[in-house]
Amino acid sequence: MCAQYCISFADVEKAHVNIRDYIHLTPVLTSSILNQVAGRNLFFKCELFQKTGSFKIRGALNAIRDLIPATLEEKPKAVVTHSSGNHGQALTYAAKLEGIPAYIVVPQTAPNCKKQAIQAYGASIIYSEQSDESREMVTKRILEETEGILVHPNQEPTVIAGQGTIALEVLNQVPLVDALVVPVGGGGMVAGIAITVKALKPSVKVYAAEPLNADDCYQSKLKGELTPNTYPPETVADGVKSSIGTNTWPIIRDLVDDVFTVTEDEIKHATQLVWERMKLFIEPTAGVGVAAVLSHNFQTVSPEVKNICIVLSGGNVDLTSLTWVRPAERPGPYQPSIYAK
Amino acid sequence: MCAQYCISFADVEKAHVNIRDYIHLTPVLTSSILNQVAGRNLFFKCELFQKTGSFKIRGALNAIRDLIPATLEEKPKAVVTHSSGNHGQALTYAAKLEGIPAYIVVPQTAPNCKKQAIQAYGASIIYSEQSDESREMVTKRILEETEGILVHPNQEPTVIAGQGTIALEVLNQVPLVDALVVPVGGGGMVAGIAITVKALKPSVKVYAAEPLNADDCYQSKLKGELTPNTYPPETVADGVKSSIGTNTWPIIRDLVDDVFTVTEDEIKHATQLVWERMKLFIEPTAGVGVAAVLSHNFQTVSPEVKNICIVLSGGNVDLTSLTWVRPAERPGPYQPSIYAK
Repeated sequence: MCAQYCISFADVEKAHVNIRDYIHLTPVLTSSILNQVAGRNLFFKCELFQKTGSFKIRGALNAIRDLIPATLEEKPKAVVTHSSGNHGQALTYAAKLEGIPAYIVVPQTAPNCKKQAIQAYGASIIYSEQSDESREMVTKRILEETEGILVHPNQEPTVIAGQGTIALEVLNQVPLVDALVVPVGGGGMVAGIAITVKALKPSVKVYAAEPLNADDCYQSKLKGELTPNTYPPETVADGVKSSIGTNTWPIIRDLVDDVFTVTEDEIKHATQLVWERMKLFIEPTAGVGVAAVLSHNFQTVSPEVKNICIVLSGGNVDLTSLTWVRPAERPGPYQPSIYAK
Repeated sequence: MCAQYCISFADVEKAHVNIRDYIHLTPVLTSSILNQVAGRNLFFKCELFQKTGSFKIRGALNAIRDLIPATLEEKPKAVVTHSSGNHGQALTYAAKLEGIPAYIVVPQTAPNCKKQAIQAYGASIIYSEQSDESREMVTKRILEETEGILVHPNQEPTVIAGQGTIALEVLNQVPLVDALVVPVGGGGMVAGIAITVKALKPSVKVYAAEPLNADDCYQSKLKGELTPNTYPPETVADGVKSSIGTNTWPIIRDLVDDVFTVTEDEIKHATQLVWERMKLFIEPTAGVGVAAVLSHNFQTVSPEVKNICIVLSGGNVDLTSLTWVRPAERPGPYQPSIYAK
């Protein structure tokens, strides 16, 4: 497997050693109500409680620690990345631990709370347009100006290996797990998890969950070739707007068992359900995995796939963007004639 | 102490035996960011993860189990209460466990999510006006019509004893705790906790936290006599609009060390801080305790009171009422001249 893909399981093990003292071992929570709704035993890996509010710190920290050589003189002058937010926050935090300046290229349309957090962590934000071209152009310019090193949010191998450490923890925390469900954007998390799961316990399924409005992973698997989104996707799950790339695609093609797409309404409903029933303040991107498990399509998954771990990827919610929250229905007035329930 | 107050510590111990197999031992979480903001070590007792989404199940369950005699024939025909929501949900859930119908008198103005949940748990909702008089009148009528038994949300002794079990857990979970901070409405929770703490470890402080707009507890302590709110209070912390009463007042008078009042802005800020930083979806009522610890007045508390446990009372948020959420500030655009942070 080592030669075939950009990382091997050994890279994930190395990442684990690199980062484990700097991150939280996030808890796995359960909910009897959500189990009822899904008709399976659900286990929620709470990466929303992770440092910087999302799983992204795993990959960012592994990348930074890999960049730092034995002698401090060779330390990179800066790290640069483009990110819808969580990777930017994570890279900034990780860089700060090593005293390296971070420059983050962010689309103007990214949630304010994420931009604020990047600045609060101490990075310089550089704005781009929403298109991939603008993002790449701006990033290239900043790399030249700062003599910095690019840490790609999802195609960088050390990042992919870092995200794989989630699976190491889940396999320990939920020994009887039958499947992991992972939101997919650029595919760094699902690729790292797939490498790990298929190395340690190949019978465990790895499912990707994706917004229908950004279904490049689904289309790629369907066509058998890398098929990026052809336009900037519109989805409430802003963390998974990116397309999978040349490093994550071969892993996803071979090791991810299936991809489930969900509508915007399904994502919103699932996110709200987790807030209301589990009291966990997840971001809509984390709701994508929950939505997938609750979707009609998921009923085609064998009932033997009973114990399912959903990765709640993050909790950096932009409170001002919650215009879509569904009003609660007003219960009817008291009617003496229908006293008994 | 037994003769002096409506409950003794023995009642709390009995309540613990009554309910412990039916409730969650809720976790105590910490946050380094919140510690920094407060300048103390904060411990958050997560009753938002409790069954029915708030601590109220403790008291309701203890009351119901106390009502059930040895022979099933004597089981009460119904239980009735008035409640802004969480006690209503809890009593319904507890009654259902014993197969007893529940009738809940709710002000029309209560959050929709709470009314919905009461109905979802299977109770009959009966509406009243917001005034105490209307609530009492409607409750009396329903008690007569159903031949039911009233379970008062905060003055019923078995309810107060049930809420006291929170302190039993906290003293075990945070052995070095110096103080507990508890939101106060009718005072059932803070009274039960005070009885328990002062029996087991009298050096530990018990502080009540109260909206300035519903400051009957503060006024009562100030004047040395029970001083209920004279009008229906306007506060975002809808769970603590009630006034303390004749059963909770003597306990609060003697055993609660201090009362801290907080403004509506402080409650909103604290609530949002817990959402954004801790990813815990607390209701604003739970934010009252956090606001108190972050308030200017709290700085008068001795620095020796270092380890502080705040009870996050519940997580039944009315999503449609979040019109007060503060917009995030927009970070400035990229300026090459201020590259360095």
